[in-house]
Amino acid sequence: MVKIDPDRLLTDLKQLRSFGATGPGVVRLALSPVDLAAREWLVTRMTEAGLDAGIDGVGTVFGRSRNSGPALVIGSHTDTQPTGGWLDGAMGVIYGLEIARALAEHDDTKHLAVDVASWIDEEGTFSGLLGSRSFVGDPVDEAIRGATNRQGERLADVLDAAGLAARPRARFEPGRQVAYLEPHIEQGGRLEAAGQAIGVVTTIVGLRELRLRFTGQRNHAGTTPMAIRRDAGAALVAFIATMNDAFAQLADADTVWTVGRIELDPGSLSVVPGAADMYLQFRDANAARLRAMEQRLADLVRDFNARNGVRVELTTIDEPMEPVSMSAALAEHLAQAADTVAPGQWLRMPSGAAHDAQVIARCMPACMMFVPSIGGVSHDFIEDTAEEHIVLGCQVAATAAAAILREEWAKRA
Amino acid sequence: MVKIDPDRLLTDLKQLRSFGATGPGVVRLALSPVDLAAREWLVTRMTEAGLDAGIDGVGTVFGRSRNSGPALVIGSHTDTQPTGGWLDGAMGVIYGLEIARALAEHDDTKHLAVDVASWIDEEGTFSGLLGSRSFVGDPVDEAIRGATNRQGERLADVLDAAGLAARPRARFEPGRQVAYLEPHIEQGGRLEAAGQAIGVVTTIVGLRELRLRFTGQRNHAGTTPMAIRRDAGAALVAFIATMNDAFAQLADADTVWTVGRIELDPGSLSVVPGAADMYLQFRDANAARLRAMEQRLADLVRDFNARNGVRVELTTIDEPMEPVSMSAALAEHLAQAADTVAPGQWLRMPSGAAHDAQVIARCMPACMMFVPSIGGVSHDFIEDTAEEHIVLGCQVAATAAAAILREEWAKRA
Repeated sequence: MVKIDPDRLLTDLKQLRSFGATGPGVVRLALSPVDLAAREWLVTRMTEAGLDAGIDGVGTVFGRSRNSGPALVIGSHTDTQPTGGWLDGAMGVIYGLEIARALAEHDDTKHLAVDVASWIDEEGTFSGLLGSRSFVGDPVDEAIRGATNRQGERLADVLDAAGLAARPRARFEPGRQVAYLEPHIEQGGRLEAAGQAIGVVTTIVGLRELRLRFTGQRNHAGTTPMAIRRDAGAALVAFIATMNDAFAQLADADTVWTVGRIELDPGSLSVVPGAADMYLQFRDANAARLRAMEQRLADLVRDFNARNGVRVELTTIDEPMEPVSMSAALAEHLAQAADTVAPGQWLRMPSGAAHDAQVIARCMPACMMFVPSIGGVSHDFIEDTAEEHIVLGCQVAATAAAAILREEWAKRA
Repeated sequence: MVKIDPDRLLTDLKQLRSFGATGPGVVRLALSPVDLAAREWLVTRMTEAGLDAGIDGVGTVFGRSRNSGPALVIGSHTDTQPTGGWLDGAMGVIYGLEIARALAEHDDTKHLAVDVASWIDEEGTFSGLLGSRSFVGDPVDEAIRGATNRQGERLADVLDAAGLAARPRARFEPGRQVAYLEPHIEQGGRLEAAGQAIGVVTTIVGLRELRLRFTGQRNHAGTTPMAIRRDAGAALVAFIATMNDAFAQLADADTVWTVGRIELDPGSLSVVPGAADMYLQFRDANAARLRAMEQRLADLVRDFNARNGVRVELTTIDEPMEPVSMSAALAEHLAQAADTVAPGQWLRMPSGAAHDAQVIARCMPACMMFVPSIGGVSHDFIEDTAEEHIVLGCQVAATAAAAILREEWAKRA
């Protein structure tokens, strides 16, 4: 069995952390000077590992194996949120690097081709999931021309200034690239709560983002009797209670919904709110359930407007994102590897967060594997994972990678 | 019966409106240049009406009757909110002026003493209810030294610049001043809804203002299952629903409570709120009920904290304000005047808003009378009252004023 080198893995992870390190966390926004420096470092490491490596025309670092035959792409992202953790996407990229090195060190696996990718801007500093979208052939030129970061810098200008704009872009190679594996931290507390070390991802959930705007009548909070009020805030609260009951009936254990923001207008203690907004997000692995929740919400809105002096209006904030199933065959390889390396310490689970894998899945079979996040925390400086879990996860991924590629060789034999 | 002059009343009201007129509304913040000009105009009008009038050391305009014998003080305020209506307190002051004139014009009432007051800063540009507090003998010097407006101007400097700081302050005259009458617009929709023209005020309600802070755990809205969330926003919504049921059981038709502001932290769609604040105000005419509501709220907080992963903490925002009963004897005079002038067109009601009368009631019997606010609107440029109601209200107040003073003369006979 292929053996990864725990020290080499952890040393590289910690060296990558030094680019943008901020206390225990990391600030390494896509295409910032420190991110570009980290990309150059990564190209060097990939080259030392025997890959043909470079930064492509959108900023993705791609290291292509020199081996012939079917290739497995292993990747994630090394850019971070404004208050990022040190592992997030970085761990999956360094896993890919370590697995490429580990396979090359053993006679029975050194013929296997592993490409390693750090997709640009997964976190959406300019345009979320840009690297993976470019890789699968999405028309990203319009996004590149239009996208700006919070400081108003244009993505096109930043790519130009970095000398990247004219470079070729890494693209999917049909026939050669046969599968995609994205190892990642869980970013939730499910593995920790279950006392498990490895999550084999079944699906990346879909999501809906909506705004509900309640319109009543602004009034004096002292002189307006309860019976004649049209209090938009009270209506919003009552609506959420009804919605929670309705969603609970439709939900399974993995369904989540969140009211992340509420705004009452004018927001004064002495004024009955005349308008109120709530922002709702819900996620599920099952596309039919997402549609059922959407329909139920529309029904609640209709019923509410038929009964109340306060009106509610439903607006879609962002395009619906549908759930994406991971390849069952690849997940089975991960499951068998987990059974071998970490018997009794793994489970199957959906991914509640979005990942590049949901984009890559459009061109080839894709799978994901999670290791536990301590306290379920991510996108925060204190994000962390036990070193034993980091090492164990890489060993599971390496074992699965070898099995996936051997099976592809067997198919072609 | 004393007869007021409708044309003179309306002409003066409209002339006062011209100081700070802004569209249909008025912007006349306490001690602003336009407010000081309006005060000078008012002093002239009072002087023409035979009163000893002037602006006092805090800015109150006080017109003292030259008649001997028991005096009735009629007043309200001529300062406005930042987006003020033209009637609000101004109407009650001009009622006082007109009533002083009307009584002086009839042989059988010209011996009666009416003092007229426009109390400074009822609306709290610097320090709410300042004029009436100064009149009853509250120690206001500390407030004068410390108070600033939104532009940061110090009240002490503004009084000094206006040449008022060294002037004597109008003070309650025990023995001479025997009663206070404050006519006012309703600022609510109760009279209009009941199809009535006059409200005789029984009580000025008390109020409580509180903040409830919910503390849970901030988490990723995609990766955190509902079952392990400690969602401060969801807890807040559930608490309000429980509180609404509890308060509804304690309330009578006049009890009001309002959640005027809600803030979720961090306020992002993709983040389960880790903290949430709600601001609660409740008002009632009954002191015991206010205490019962306070106690029930404390019980709900205790029960909530015993049961939930989210903690809630209750903080008092402002000093409790206790309900103030209006003089039943004076209210009876208003009721009899309404029965005479506007039979079948009046009702008794509490005042849901605060007024100078609640302060003046500390030194002498006080009463209030309302006329309808169109659409229940006040503190808004479109605030208005039908002219027939303005005139009718002044006639009721004049009739009651004469009766109150005649009764005082009779007591002393």
